[in-house]
Amino acid sequence: MKGYELAVEAVYIADEPSSFVTRRVGEIDIRLGGIPGDRHYGLLRKADSRQKLYPKGTMIANRRQISIISAEECRLIADKLGISEVRPEWLGANVLVAGMAEFTLLPPGARLLVPGHVGLICEGENMPCKAPGDIIERESGAVGAAARFVREAKQRRGIVCSVEREGVLRAGDTLTVVLP
Amino acid sequence: MKGYELAVEAVYIADEPSSFVTRRVGEIDIRLGGIPGDRHYGLLRKADSRQKLYPKGTMIANRRQISIISAEECRLIADKLGISEVRPEWLGANVLVAGMAEFTLLPPGARLLVPGHVGLICEGENMPCKAPGDIIERESGAVGAAARFVREAKQRRGIVCSVEREGVLRAGDTLTVVLP
Repeated sequence: MKGYELAVEAVYIADEPSSFVTRRVGEIDIRLGGIPGDRHYGLLRKADSRQKLYPKGTMIANRRQISIISAEECRLIADKLGISEVRPEWLGANVLVAGMAEFTLLPPGARLLVPGHVGLICEGENMPCKAPGDIIERESGAVGAAARFVREAKQRRGIVCSVEREGVLRAGDTLTVVLP
Repeated sequence: MKGYELAVEAVYIADEPSSFVTRRVGEIDIRLGGIPGDRHYGLLRKADSRQKLYPKGTMIANRRQISIISAEECRLIADKLGISEVRPEWLGANVLVAGMAEFTLLPPGARLLVPGHVGLICEGENMPCKAPGDIIERESGAVGAAARFVREAKQRRGIVCSVEREGVLRAGDTLTVVLP
């Protein structure tokens, strides 16, 4: 199979009900509805302000279960904010990858595959919202980072994916990227 | 909501297990997994020769539950084959629409909505395979139609859709098309 290759550096789960912040785990079990126990798990979700085709709260197919961010773009956001690091957990990422400069520009329909195991479908950029900025400001102590996060994270904040093939994903795996 | 509008002329179900041919019904109840009782119903399906990213038979997310064809393109295929009609049932269509000249060219990601009721996501062209050609030749009596179907139906055989919002679709409904 031809394609870009991405290293899976770490995987995470958001299993604390009161927060979108994730915590690092050894592996994530990816099912059609997402990661069981993760706050974004579910075959259906409520339409929100990003999905203007439906009244807010309408139950629609959930295609934003898995959030992936790149180490290169975490570094870029940190540089732009003038802080030493942006941790994937603060952005609610489920997967940290490395190996592609402009990962967030991956087009919808691209596949991310661990051949023989897992298949994810890129559903597009994870549009930055204000909440991770608040976490970054609190954790880094950089006054004003919250207000600047949305602008600086644009096209760098990673992608959301839906699940095509169920399986377990682990740090150390290699994801093959196949463009649509 | 701005967009093209399509008239739903008829709806169909493939509920005869031995055949992909559909039969006309008054309404179809569209769930996340498709139309209960239809042969393409299911949240998962086996990967086939159209989906080369996975070994044949791998269980993957099903995004081909609803097949939609246009009256205009049925007419075009019939003209090309030199027969009086191509019935949507022979192509295994679930929905017959009218109102758009080149319906099959609708891009993946386009939405087809009955506002307040149903939401479908265009997953792209339904690539013609040989089987409907055999039905057309048998039903129309036009010798040789089977062999010519795949070529003549290309980019005219309608689209497949996945389900974004569950609901009931009826003949007489209007579908609003929203481009991605």
